Amino acid sequence: MSTKKFVEAITDMDVDFSQWYTDIVKKAELVDYSSVKGCMILRPYGYAIWENIQKELDTQFKQTDHENVYMPMFIPKSLLQKEADHVEGFAPELAWVTHGGHDELAEPLAVRPTSETLFCEHYSKVIESYNDLPKLYNQWCSVVRWEKTTRPFLRTTEFLWQEGHTAHATAEEAQEETIQMLNVYADFLENFLAIPVIKGQKTEKEKFAGAKATYTIESLMHDGKALQSGTSHNFGDGFAKAFNIQYTDKNSKRQYVHQTSWGMTTRVIGALIMVHGDNSGLVLPPKVAPTQVMVIPIAQHKDGVIEKAKELQKRISKVARVKIDISDKMPGWKFNEYEMKGIPVRVEIGPKDIEKNQAVIVRRDTREKIFVSLDSLEETITTILEEIQQSLYEKALKNRTEKTYKASTFNELKQLSDDKQGFIKAMWCKDLACEEKIKEEAGLTSRCMPFEQEQIAEECVCCGKKAETMVYWGKAY
Amino acid sequence: MSTKKFVEAITDMDVDFSQWYTDIVKKAELVDYSSVKGCMILRPYGYAIWENIQKELDTQFKQTDHENVYMPMFIPKSLLQKEADHVEGFAPELAWVTHGGHDELAEPLAVRPTSETLFCEHYSKVIESYNDLPKLYNQWCSVVRWEKTTRPFLRTTEFLWQEGHTAHATAEEAQEETIQMLNVYADFLENFLAIPVIKGQKTEKEKFAGAKATYTIESLMHDGKALQSGTSHNFGDGFAKAFNIQYTDKNSKRQYVHQTSWGMTTRVIGALIMVHGDNSGLVLPPKVAPTQVMVIPIAQHKDGVIEKAKELQKRISKVARVKIDISDKMPGWKFNEYEMKGIPVRVEIGPKDIEKNQAVIVRRDTREKIFVSLDSLEETITTILEEIQQSLYEKALKNRTEKTYKASTFNELKQLSDDKQGFIKAMWCKDLACEEKIKEEAGLTSRCMPFEQEQIAEECVCCGKKAETMVYWGKAY
Repeated sequence: MSTKKFVEAITDMDVDFSQWYTDIVKKAELVDYSSVKGCMILRPYGYAIWENIQKELDTQFKQTDHENVYMPMFIPKSLLQKEADHVEGFAPELAWVTHGGHDELAEPLAVRPTSETLFCEHYSKVIESYNDLPKLYNQWCSVVRWEKTTRPFLRTTEFLWQEGHTAHATAEEAQEETIQMLNVYADFLENFLAIPVIKGQKTEKEKFAGAKATYTIESLMHDGKALQSGTSHNFGDGFAKAFNIQYTDKNSKRQYVHQTSWGMTTRVIGALIMVHGDNSGLVLPPKVAPTQVMVIPIAQHKDGVIEKAKELQKRISKVARVKIDISDKMPGWKFNEYEMKGIPVRVEIGPKDIEKNQAVIVRRDTREKIFVSLDSLEETITTILEEIQQSLYEKALKNRTEKTYKASTFNELKQLSDDKQGFIKAMWCKDLACEEKIKEEAGLTSRCMPFEQEQIAEECVCCGKKAETMVYWGKAY
Repeated sequence: MSTKKFVEAITDMDVDFSQWYTDIVKKAELVDYSSVKGCMILRPYGYAIWENIQKELDTQFKQTDHENVYMPMFIPKSLLQKEADHVEGFAPELAWVTHGGHDELAEPLAVRPTSETLFCEHYSKVIESYNDLPKLYNQWCSVVRWEKTTRPFLRTTEFLWQEGHTAHATAEEAQEETIQMLNVYADFLENFLAIPVIKGQKTEKEKFAGAKATYTIESLMHDGKALQSGTSHNFGDGFAKAFNIQYTDKNSKRQYVHQTSWGMTTRVIGALIMVHGDNSGLVLPPKVAPTQVMVIPIAQHKDGVIEKAKELQKRISKVARVKIDISDKMPGWKFNEYEMKGIPVRVEIGPKDIEKNQAVIVRRDTREKIFVSLDSLEETITTILEEIQQSLYEKALKNRTEKTYKASTFNELKQLSDDKQGFIKAMWCKDLACEEKIKEEAGLTSRCMPFEQEQIAEECVCCGKKAETMVYWGKAY
């Protein structure tokens, strides 16, 4: 049966990837546009995905001893200006509240674009001695960055995220925390979202406003473009000095704290779409899927079919998040609808299946049909969900491997940038001039200096001087 | 042992209830003030209480088939103005974003004080036929209302809440939903927070801006003041007409939907403090307590004490949320600290207890000491936690009963208002003039027209005309 029979087809991803993305976002009912420019509405299905992401990440944060708090959504202008690099970086993107009630405010309030300044002010009040350290706080909230061009999930004026903010006694502890949280993010993307990532450090040019060092996980979308999927920053004692966050150490000496921050946003839902989706719609890894199994009765008007389907639903609910669709729509419509929504497995059950004591399981990712005896239904479903999770990861990894290239010369780099879409590994001297030239002439930005280095050449791909590091270059969302 | 020995005492609640409240909020480390006027910081302990509230309410919402979504935090001025009563009600409390990036906005954006208008706009786009109904959405977020005087939890410029917004085919269904959610709130307060409530309807004067009818749960604080603890509104088709939200019914006729909204906020944490707290600090009902049991080793430097305490912690963790404090602070300091934080049960274990195969359990609410054999530790803790939950409810109910009065004449009403602090039940003719006179001359507002009516008199307590309803009057936070 054609999967295009009942619903309007979405754009072919190989014809227009960008339109394909927009089609999925709308037809899978993940978001809707609002009358506020650049702000999106997260519809129930989109929000349910975010809730699963939250639940898993929050568990990871708590297992690593972090506590949740909530800071105000407004930042007074003077507070924001305390750390010079930070305010300079965010100034162009701020939304300003200037009136409250019927009065003009004495001081404008920025809607938080991120909350370093608020956490710092609070830390300066509650940290007194080494006994108060470390402070390991996290916050779930929305932030606002005034963007000129926006796309659902990838770049929106308001978005949901979590932001971790920690304070430590020593530089070493702060660095450990920074890397620990990068690893939490990397494991989450790989194991939960089935998205392979490259871990590495951002260049000076690309690091966070006010950070000493920014670390990132970079993933590759199906079209070969990169997506920064999570970042973790080591602030050193820069913010501590700007906000006077000191503690008394064991020798009664006053010391500045060392700080970190790290964030992950609804943007990763964009990554889910662009890494796993296909021309029939969304494809969700089972771990993050709000519904893992959809039961669809076939010829449901016949005696006993709906009852049997409900019985299967009940059995499956012991091992998976399952729903049933007994609406009077045609099975074909249902197949298309739940393929569009990326539900990992559908279970079909009709009169003939009942006779044979079997059900038909269809995998969303491979479309494979599996006839399963009802005696082993739960076990089979459990196994298939695990297989899908694993195989989506492997498929994404294969795509990334195939779309990762090497360049030893600037000509090679430019040629690859023109001909191919993907990661390009090339050496770099760490000179800003070369990074800027690569951006201008080859259209590539540095994605990261990966932890896993390779010696591709001795010299910088741009200037020919001695190379200091290998860099992943790419075009990014 | 005096409980005031090691920490600075808090103000006596009978001397200055308001200062007592502020002391608890700060010393139990629930909130901190920020440099943004009227906005509070929810510290880890305060936020952990909110997380438990969220988890329980969210479960209740999902069990009644509601789905979570997320709407933008901004509302364009023109959108807000579509429903006349609504905008009039909220206009004095709005915060306005007038600049984004470096530019002045063509149209100012209000920071949401509530999101009816955004939900309505969305519903007008996604509701087409009776098949799309009902829409049962909820959102967890923060909202902003520009307040002149603020108090932590009770009235803050920004606060956290949930707002449910639903659309139905018929007026009957909308009314059912309104009452269903009021009941969810009432059950939640009574069973989870151990706070008895009066369910009823708000008067015309006190109803929500734009609603046809507002229902409320009202609770009574320890000082005899009332607190509106949750509201549920039936909008009829007023918003539907203003926003043109129509659906095609089964006879292909276009119909307006009927809508509801309902909300509960961080304000209920204020209720928790003022209903259950005492002069040693917070008292938390076990169900909402982030930590239900605190294990404190006595003479912990002695051989085997810490090991035994950890063993108890591990055993208790199977039946309760438990922590252990093995810091080098004195046991007396620890007792005070966890009494201040309202942890329902502490378990003391020292060398003598170990010899006797026992532990000492101390209830936070009654201070009762119970010696328990280690053989029945888990069962005893489970039972005691249930008893505390029940007994806090009964104590609060007793307080309310004792502080609920009746008035048949205006003089009685005034006298009660002068002499007593509490609910006053009195009859009312439903005339606004009488409600306003009672407010001006007796200093009482109508809390609600309760579902459970009594015939206290034939005539209105104010004008002497025929009474239409009994009202709970009071002074409110």
